[in-house]
Amino acid sequence: MTILILNGPNLNRLGRREPDTYGSDTLEDIQALLASRFPEVTFEFVQSNHEGDLIEALHRASDSAMAGVVFNPGGYTHTSVALRDAVSAIDVPVIEVHVSNIYHREHFRHHSMVAPVVVGQVTGFGAAGYALAVQALVDRAGSDGR
Amino acid sequence: MTILILNGPNLNRLGRREPDTYGSDTLEDIQALLASRFPEVTFEFVQSNHEGDLIEALHRASDSAMAGVVFNPGGYTHTSVALRDAVSAIDVPVIEVHVSNIYHREHFRHHSMVAPVVVGQVTGFGAAGYALAVQALVDRAGSDGR
Amino acid sequence: MTILILNGPNLNRLGRREPDTYGSDTLEDIQALLASRFPEVTFEFVQSNHEGDLIEALHRASDSAMAGVVFNPGGYTHTSVALRDAVSAIDVPVIEVHVSNIYHREHFRHHSMVAPVVVGQVTGFGAAGYALAVQALVDRAGSDGR
Amino acid sequence: MTILILNGPNLNRLGRREPDTYGSDTLEDIQALLASRFPEVTFEFVQSNHEGDLIEALHRASDSAMAGVVFNPGGYTHTSVALRDAVSAIDVPVIEVHVSNIYHREHFRHHSMVAPVVVGQVTGFGAAGYALAVQALVDRAGSDGR
Amino acid sequence: MTILILNGPNLNRLGRREPDTYGSDTLEDIQALLASRFPEVTFEFVQSNHEGDLIEALHRASDSAMAGVVFNPGGYTHTSVALRDAVSAIDVPVIEVHVSNIYHREHFRHHSMVAPVVVGQVTGFGAAGYALAVQALVDRAGSDGR
Amino acid sequence: MTILILNGPNLNRLGRREPDTYGSDTLEDIQALLASRFPEVTFEFVQSNHEGDLIEALHRASDSAMAGVVFNPGGYTHTSVALRDAVSAIDVPVIEVHVSNIYHREHFRHHSMVAPVVVGQVTGFGAAGYALAVQALVDRAGSDGR
Amino acid sequence: MTILILNGPNLNRLGRREPDTYGSDTLEDIQALLASRFPEVTFEFVQSNHEGDLIEALHRASDSAMAGVVFNPGGYTHTSVALRDAVSAIDVPVIEVHVSNIYHREHFRHHSMVAPVVVGQVTGFGAAGYALAVQALVDRAGSDGR
Amino acid sequence: MTILILNGPNLNRLGRREPDTYGSDTLEDIQALLASRFPEVTFEFVQSNHEGDLIEALHRASDSAMAGVVFNPGGYTHTSVALRDAVSAIDVPVIEVHVSNIYHREHFRHHSMVAPVVVGQVTGFGAAGYALAVQALVDRAGSDGR
Amino acid sequence: MTILILNGPNLNRLGRREPDTYGSDTLEDIQALLASRFPEVTFEFVQSNHEGDLIEALHRASDSAMAGVVFNPGGYTHTSVALRDAVSAIDVPVIEVHVSNIYHREHFRHHSMVAPVVVGQVTGFGAAGYALAVQALVDRAGSDGR
Amino acid sequence: MTILILNGPNLNRLGRREPDTYGSDTLEDIQALLASRFPEVTFEFVQSNHEGDLIEALHRASDSAMAGVVFNPGGYTHTSVALRDAVSAIDVPVIEVHVSNIYHREHFRHHSMVAPVVVGQVTGFGAAGYALAVQALVDRAGSDGR
Amino acid sequence: MTILILNGPNLNRLGRREPDTYGSDTLEDIQALLASRFPEVTFEFVQSNHEGDLIEALHRASDSAMAGVVFNPGGYTHTSVALRDAVSAIDVPVIEVHVSNIYHREHFRHHSMVAPVVVGQVTGFGAAGYALAVQALVDRAGSDGR
Amino acid sequence: MTILILNGPNLNRLGRREPDTYGSDTLEDIQALLASRFPEVTFEFVQSNHEGDLIEALHRASDSAMAGVVFNPGGYTHTSVALRDAVSAIDVPVIEVHVSNIYHREHFRHHSMVAPVVVGQVTGFGAAGYALAVQALVDRAGSDGR
Repeated sequence: MTILILNGPNLNRLGRREPDTYGSDTLEDIQALLASRFPEVTFEFVQSNHEGDLIEALHRASDSAMAGVVFNPGGYTHTSVALRDAVSAIDVPVIEVHVSNIYHREHFRHHSMVAPVVVGQVTGFGAAGYALAVQALVDRAGSDGR
Repeated sequence: MTILILNGPNLNRLGRREPDTYGSDTLEDIQALLASRFPEVTFEFVQSNHEGDLIEALHRASDSAMAGVVFNPGGYTHTSVALRDAVSAIDVPVIEVHVSNIYHREHFRHHSMVAPVVVGQVTGFGAAGYALAVQALVDRAGSDGR
Repeated sequence: MTILILNGPNLNRLGRREPDTYGSDTLEDIQALLASRFPEVTFEFVQSNHEGDLIEALHRASDSAMAGVVFNPGGYTHTSVALRDAVSAIDVPVIEVHVSNIYHREHFRHHSMVAPVVVGQVTGFGAAGYALAVQALVDRAGSDGR
Repeated sequence: MTILILNGPNLNRLGRREPDTYGSDTLEDIQALLASRFPEVTFEFVQSNHEGDLIEALHRASDSAMAGVVFNPGGYTHTSVALRDAVSAIDVPVIEVHVSNIYHREHFRHHSMVAPVVVGQVTGFGAAGYALAVQALVDRAGSDGR
Repeated sequence: MTILILNGPNLNRLGRREPDTYGSDTLEDIQALLASRFPEVTFEFVQSNHEGDLIEALHRASDSAMAGVVFNPGGYTHTSVALRDAVSAIDVPVIEVHVSNIYHREHFRHHSMVAPVVVGQVTGFGAAGYALAVQALVDRAGSDGR
Repeated sequence: MTILILNGPNLNRLGRREPDTYGSDTLEDIQALLASRFPEVTFEFVQSNHEGDLIEALHRASDSAMAGVVFNPGGYTHTSVALRDAVSAIDVPVIEVHVSNIYHREHFRHHSMVAPVVVGQVTGFGAAGYALAVQALVDRAGSDGR
Repeated sequence: MTILILNGPNLNRLGRREPDTYGSDTLEDIQALLASRFPEVTFEFVQSNHEGDLIEALHRASDSAMAGVVFNPGGYTHTSVALRDAVSAIDVPVIEVHVSNIYHREHFRHHSMVAPVVVGQVTGFGAAGYALAVQALVDRAGSDGR
Repeated sequence: MTILILNGPNLNRLGRREPDTYGSDTLEDIQALLASRFPEVTFEFVQSNHEGDLIEALHRASDSAMAGVVFNPGGYTHTSVALRDAVSAIDVPVIEVHVSNIYHREHFRHHSMVAPVVVGQVTGFGAAGYALAVQALVDRAGSDGR
Repeated sequence: MTILILNGPNLNRLGRREPDTYGSDTLEDIQALLASRFPEVTFEFVQSNHEGDLIEALHRASDSAMAGVVFNPGGYTHTSVALRDAVSAIDVPVIEVHVSNIYHREHFRHHSMVAPVVVGQVTGFGAAGYALAVQALVDRAGSDGR
Repeated sequence: MTILILNGPNLNRLGRREPDTYGSDTLEDIQALLASRFPEVTFEFVQSNHEGDLIEALHRASDSAMAGVVFNPGGYTHTSVALRDAVSAIDVPVIEVHVSNIYHREHFRHHSMVAPVVVGQVTGFGAAGYALAVQALVDRAGSDGR
Repeated sequence: MTILILNGPNLNRLGRREPDTYGSDTLEDIQALLASRFPEVTFEFVQSNHEGDLIEALHRASDSAMAGVVFNPGGYTHTSVALRDAVSAIDVPVIEVHVSNIYHREHFRHHSMVAPVVVGQVTGFGAAGYALAVQALVDRAGSDGR
Repeated sequence: MTILILNGPNLNRLGRREPDTYGSDTLEDIQALLASRFPEVTFEFVQSNHEGDLIEALHRASDSAMAGVVFNPGGYTHTSVALRDAVSAIDVPVIEVHVSNIYHREHFRHHSMVAPVVVGQVTGFGAAGYALAVQALVDRAGSDGR
């Protein structure tokens, strides 16, 4: 099975910006963690600061019939109707992940535009949250025979 | 006369996503419909998922002195100040079109950032809405001799 | 086919009040325009300043099995639950028309109580908007064989 | 004792519109139900789609010293200050009835302008709600010897 | 000079309902007061519980070139866009009067839809407020030679 | 048929506290009234000041297949998601009753969390409201043969 | 009888600032107008830009048993709880006046903190509004024999 | 290591109520799932419909130095300051779980009072969410040597 | 005279949780402080995490005719209508106390449901606040001879 | 030790205005009460209707190193950022007092701008509240040896 | 050219209060900085804690035809309509300065009542902001030949 | 020292769109102005309509250790969480500039998402605002020896 790990704006700097909030793990560390814990899964890793690129990555995940998407929309989480529409427009299960607990932070981060259209949300566990989300996709694939 | 048919994010998937909401006509079907009904009009068709591309297409419509723009901003409709500014910044008449009746849908789709700066709005008629909007531009050109 | 052109409060003064906002076409001009452009359609024209009269005109459109209603609710657009209920209560397609672009104007005019229950909305094209709405009903009747 | 059964806009179509929401009983069925269950009561039945008519019916109920009013204001429930003032301006007990449970429905139906000035409210019991409201007026007349 | 004294819903019961709020003067008392204090003015008195009647009375005041309107919109004050449009649509000066101090009362009475389009507002002086409003129209006619 | 009469916090003091608001009938008076008016019904009476007890009483009404519940949630009406969930979680019809007209009182009492999930609501009739609610359950059982 | 004409901040510049909004009459013109129209009244004129001075002028009006106060609180109208308390704390009738129609202007000017505690409000008549307010005090003194 | 699995109101009916929303797994199924997947963990299972019981269970988890709490506060999630305070008052890591995706549901379920004070939140994965939360506690214990 | 010292949820952990916010005094310290400072007063001390227990303690204070209640409702302060009703339902003076200054803290702690129905409120003085509240009850008893 | 008793606008009329709300004690009575109950304290009494005077009195309290301030900001409580800044700008402990229970009164009185920056608040005890506030300052001085 | 440097409440304590927020420069330091950097400008320095004094200083700047005003309204920034009116009422350019970045601070500091009527705003540069504002006035005078 | 002058969407049309609002200076004029006034500074000029390009320009400013950024985010100012995050993620001082006074304009332009994370904001001075911002960076570099 193939899973897309999709990261939005500024996440290319993860581990280098504001470590008190986001921890010191980089995207590369997360890739290594997922590869070692889930050897049976093929991962595709995409990060972009462009809203349009993220939309198109979601479209491609559907076109290539991936088993699921683990998606951290970064700063677009809170306002992007277009990303919400992209998630709705595809038939691949999407799980929303946030590295920090968004409910600990500024008020405008408490609302997610994509939360109502994803399968579920995992927030606050740092880099480990990506592994929990992949676990959820693996469990789900097991239970419905995908 | 030349008219730009400008479509925003996710509309490249029109006819393939959620047909209960958007119908089964694709952008290609809309192009064929417009070409057959308005043989005297030259159409330019642009679709992009990038907010910046849409802004620049509006700029180019002005630079090449087109007769009008039929614009479906998709998910950017509801939040994009930049697209609103782009419409304000050009002297070509712009008509806003939505395939679905946005007032039947979620509350956040009821507000359009661009509505206050366009000539008019046509919403809820599916693919036929594009033809109504072109008709309005043709009538308008006729009445002011453009 | 028969279409009801239904106009609400103050529209008896159209063309005589605030021409910068509403243009100089009167209701009589609109009637002439529709008759000349759609010779195959039978029109019934009703204007009333009374909310109850408008409700009953909608009921009658249903009882006499008209092909559609083009409805400009005027100042009742923004607050009338009763007109919304009347539109919901009948099985005739209703299209909402506004002469001015209501989104250019005061904030309280941006919200329409009837928009969620009509087929579609046409706003901002002056008198020509009535013709666009009739066109939409004619197209619709053609496509579903009504 | 004489009781006014006062029904507002669109209730002349009760039983014929949207039966999933409003049931299949018509106003005539309700009249028959009340007549058979309360043979000792004289009923006056008024339905109007005009807000002004409803105001005047309330005034007349006071002028002719009726024992009470059972009032379903329909779509005027949610916005009419004038009906609220009419209820306040008379010394006849008024009971508000709604056929459907208005709290199951759209948000704007959850607020009633007249609820603060009536004796009580009965909502959600279909046609039977009218009988409960008459029962309340009969009980009340019995207890205070009116 | 001719002045229209226009009263809205429930004001036919003035002096008979809730005297703590509205005082004991009736509309007839107000007519007598105005006639005796302003013998040089011709008054037309209209009261209606119907919103449409009030709209049409405003239209007629304009068609017959009256010198002004003293308007108490009653319960329609707070919600009627149609009455606001009627005031805007005519070129006769309109002064808004309220018998009670609307700012002493429920919150929904603090906002007037017509206040932004009238010349001025007089509120809280009981029946005497009508005389103050007529005085303002007389002063105004004197100062601009109307 | 068996009906549960379920009363929430502070209702053990009914008839002893604030009689201007709540009247002078006690819970015992209400029990006597119901027993005498509905001799064919078996009543179970529960009052508790504990939210958890009320939840469990609703669960038990379902487990013992009662014909209905007449429920006055008292002060928990306005905030309790847990009671709303308990009403949703059972398949017994529940009718909400309030002794006072909650719409006469403070703003925070105008909203009921349980109203959207009950069959209907009876408010403002004092102790007699319980009898009206039982009547509604008896009518309902009669009409659907329960 | 003695009446205090009390003017708040910036009104010392009336007639010199923004004549489109406030007209060209100065405070001195208003004093002359009142003196000539009401020769039987003794006026005291106070203008201050200091909130504390206005409070103390209201206290003194009460201590010296004046017949009334005509009060234009200027920019303090919209926010001052202290001035509202001062009006409440005295037993002299106070009438609120505004030169411009405050409902034509920015939203924050539509709300008056003092309106709920004054006898009445006169707004939108320019300098003439002061004369109307004095007339109201004279009428009032006549009718209750003060 | 010992982990408390703490469930709030109505969760004793999980698997029996509204399976479209909550799935068909019961609390017993969840217990069996956790026991089989995490044989090295000692679980304590508590369910209560009483807010006070839940508070005290959190206190005891701290007093007995458990390794963590997996907490589904049910309907108390959205309003309980007291449960939030209880989570803040203890030094045991708490993870919030919801069986359904609360962001798919009514608006009042989108806000969690406890989310800002827990370590993280897992929502929308049905019974499997409990296992993900335990996994997060086990990972966390591993990484900080607890 | 007998005074009830009533403490709500989580206050059993006072002095042990978050000392920066709540100080290091325990409930036992407060009991000792009150006993030593007010030897002439008999105190009853109740703490419960259950809303229903707090309601019933207030009822008992009234039934046993205590001289007053010093009440810290803890986390129930901000949402409980039922506790507010319990305070209203009894004729014993109640004083609200908070250990921390609730206005220094999160926004949702700034509003108290019970504040409008208590005699007064003392907030921000730590354990000493209980002594100030008892002093207020003693003063009050002295002044009105209770 | 020296304590400043600082009173804001309209408090010079305390005991003479609206005794139902504020009681019959005057500022002089409060001075006498404090002098007799706290003979060991030196008091300075300042009352002003001017916001600037109150700011400067707070500055002087700091410059002369007083032991504390008991501050009733009157009508400035609810809107003054400048007084809040003045309290923040000094290093003398300030206690906020209100004679009436501000939570019994209009909604705009429920919010205090200064509450977040004072040590604590005492409200609703009439003149006795000043003595409780002084007691709190004396206790505090005792406990930290100031 | 003459420029007024106008400072509002609490700014007499600048440099002595909360240096983390406001820095350690005093008003005297700012005066020295401006004098040395702009030897060709005559400065008038006014600081007052009284709103009325600030209004009158603005009036005088206009009466003496100054070249501009650099205005830090301090805590009055956020609520004063009267200062806004004073700025509007004069024909001297006014530039708003804040020492701290008001957008870093409490929410109520983010809104300025005067910002819409000044030429421009400079915020967050500490004492240097005054020099930037003077520079802007000097540039402006240069460019329009004042 | 090197400073990045970063301009957002539609600013490539500055000087050509809506000169009443934005003036007639183009970006090239601004570049010339800065070069002539600050010969000791090296400028990099970037303009883009793509949100992602702006994010990456901010990232590069950090990677190349520039002395500061003068940033006009254009239409993205009001909604872009991603740009705010980009500013937070870098350690280069950023100053926000707007050509027009955004507080004179539509309400949605009054709120800036980036204002809370920049050093300061300069708004309303046209092209000259860029020079003021550069001056602030130069001053700042001088004072901290960068």
